[in-house]
Amino acid sequence: MPESLPMNDGNGVYSYRKNSQLQKEGSDVMMGLIKEAILEKMDIKILLASTSNASFHIVDFGCSIGPNTFLAMQNIIEAVTHKYQTQSKNIQISPEFQVFFNDHVTNDFNTLFKSLPPERRYFASAVPGSFYGHLFPSRSIHFAYSSYSLQWLSKTPEELVDEKSRSWNKGKIHYIDASKEVTSAYVAQFENDMEVFLNARAKEIVEGGMIVMILPGKHSELDHSQVAAGFNILKFFESSLTDMINEGILEETLVDSFNVPLYVASPKDMTKVVKRNDYFSIERMEITESQSKIVDEADAKSLIIHLRATLEGIFTKYFGVKISDEMFARTMDKCEEISAWMKVEYKKASQLFVVLKQISTKKDLVIFESGLLDFLEYLFSGGS
Amino acid sequence: MPESLPMNDGNGVYSYRKNSQLQKEGSDVMMGLIKEAILEKMDIKILLASTSNASFHIVDFGCSIGPNTFLAMQNIIEAVTHKYQTQSKNIQISPEFQVFFNDHVTNDFNTLFKSLPPERRYFASAVPGSFYGHLFPSRSIHFAYSSYSLQWLSKTPEELVDEKSRSWNKGKIHYIDASKEVTSAYVAQFENDMEVFLNARAKEIVEGGMIVMILPGKHSELDHSQVAAGFNILKFFESSLTDMINEGILEETLVDSFNVPLYVASPKDMTKVVKRNDYFSIERMEITESQSKIVDEADAKSLIIHLRATLEGIFTKYFGVKISDEMFARTMDKCEEISAWMKVEYKKASQLFVVLKQISTKKDLVIFESGLLDFLEYLFSGGS
Repeated sequence: MPESLPMNDGNGVYSYRKNSQLQKEGSDVMMGLIKEAILEKMDIKILLASTSNASFHIVDFGCSIGPNTFLAMQNIIEAVTHKYQTQSKNIQISPEFQVFFNDHVTNDFNTLFKSLPPERRYFASAVPGSFYGHLFPSRSIHFAYSSYSLQWLSKTPEELVDEKSRSWNKGKIHYIDASKEVTSAYVAQFENDMEVFLNARAKEIVEGGMIVMILPGKHSELDHSQVAAGFNILKFFESSLTDMINEGILEETLVDSFNVPLYVASPKDMTKVVKRNDYFSIERMEITESQSKIVDEADAKSLIIHLRATLEGIFTKYFGVKISDEMFARTMDKCEEISAWMKVEYKKASQLFVVLKQISTKKDLVIFESGLLDFLEYLFSGGS
Repeated sequence: MPESLPMNDGNGVYSYRKNSQLQKEGSDVMMGLIKEAILEKMDIKILLASTSNASFHIVDFGCSIGPNTFLAMQNIIEAVTHKYQTQSKNIQISPEFQVFFNDHVTNDFNTLFKSLPPERRYFASAVPGSFYGHLFPSRSIHFAYSSYSLQWLSKTPEELVDEKSRSWNKGKIHYIDASKEVTSAYVAQFENDMEVFLNARAKEIVEGGMIVMILPGKHSELDHSQVAAGFNILKFFESSLTDMINEGILEETLVDSFNVPLYVASPKDMTKVVKRNDYFSIERMEITESQSKIVDEADAKSLIIHLRATLEGIFTKYFGVKISDEMFARTMDKCEEISAWMKVEYKKASQLFVVLKQISTKKDLVIFESGLLDFLEYLFSGGS
């Protein structure tokens, strides 16, 4: 079972809802790119050939509870409608849209449902479960979207917590400034997870259907420790934990066996897994730097609050509420130090933007489809 | 906006989850009937013609939070799979199933998702919103199911709370033992709601697709006040409220302007609305009596606890927690009286079982579909 790591729920000070600004800033930059990709790369004709009822199905994999997912869905629907009307010229018909909001079963879907925009132009539904598994019938999705979710690995690589392994990540909670072996274990887990993700989507997405993935990214030539801020700052959390060990209020072995299951991928990483998988063509792949007020102003306090909304669930699940609270409080006390560090060291948040198109070249898919066609032919030829 | 009247959530003593036994007893009887209807009346060929990806889509309208909905979905899937394999003879292929769980946006979908059977053979998703409105794209549903939900009216008929109307329901909370005019207002609301429900489903369900509806029912020849127990017993709640008025702890006008929006339909009622709507053929329509231990033993206490799970939300929403608690407590104090009454008066729970098939004879649908075909033809003839 892939691990479930929900964002902080509800509406509190540290809720994801009130602290998803950094994600939003990132996504805003991407909205234009997504529109462009749809207008340039999508072929409505091929898409429609695959469903007879002419409704257009969109999924957000890792939607959390909004509001970012609602803005993204609206953006995609506007672009597809525009493309539709351009490609069909005079005909003013537009497809009906069905949007599937996906996230872990522990996600707060009740809050998501209550926040659905009343003026939405789509039929809304939710699909619970890990996207590292099948979630939809074959050939039922036209457009898949995932923003700031695929950086979460399905689990912590096991070697990291194995004393006997060369990848044992003693005293550390991530691969930032860790050994080469630790980094390799993270890379291997990312590659494995993406393979599972792409295999599932290859089956679910219609031929010609698209995936847009947005995730924290780094330039391929940068070292793994040189990833952008939000992640690099994990070392300050780590040092708070180390301080607590030194003061005797936290077991050393607890920290030794804990690792944050986050990976920041480069275009090279992503290209490798997509090519190996071979069900999708790469229509676009790039690293973009986004503007962030938090970063420009070296606002360590806001950054820590933001990260708490995203990461608290994992820390609490593992260390318990007391230790986790203490760690965030101690890190907050280092605000000035972190702010000074941000001014010098901080890399601007960069994002990996990926557009893929389903190409169905694989043999097993062809067999699957022709089997289905045989069956349908059999039925219609009177085989009842 | 249709009113939202969720069952009691969570796992407490009065939760719907722990008190849906009566519904289950009723549904168990129906499982065999549903299987029969699928095997006898469903035409897999026609259904499959309407979707190219060969997945089979089922909705439960008014699913609540389980477990009854899971048993019903499993039953339907087993029957469809069986029919599929019978109709296709030797071919051992079975469709993929996608199940949509629908209920009001206030339903506890988080609990529903966490209770999904791990061994389920379908893709699960949830669709929030009133079924007295469109919830799905056109022609996207093969099988619709609704159990113990369509007795809930979309709202209380307005005349019932209008002092100037002949249908003013002074001092009463339902049409049991009420005036003819009050009953007529309920009937009109039921007819209106069912028309809205059937119109929405006519568009959403594929040609040849089916609806199975199970709701509390009464024989057509019985008087409206002679409906089965769970409803008839509303008069004991009513008398508790009257007692509280007489003791000066409840405002008379509050009770005058409150009415439970529940209607118990007869085959005659249902036939009338289906025929008037004209998008569906009636494949089966009958009243069945179901065995109930609660009824056999005149177990008033269990019956009141059960009704509390179902009705508390409405009373609390209107009267507040304090009055509502008091009313249930006072009714519980009358257990012996109610039990004695049950032995003599209680009608066995009877259910209205309805099977409809989408026949698409209406002109507007034909226009809709041919418009779509024109458009698709245009696209494939190179109209880009």
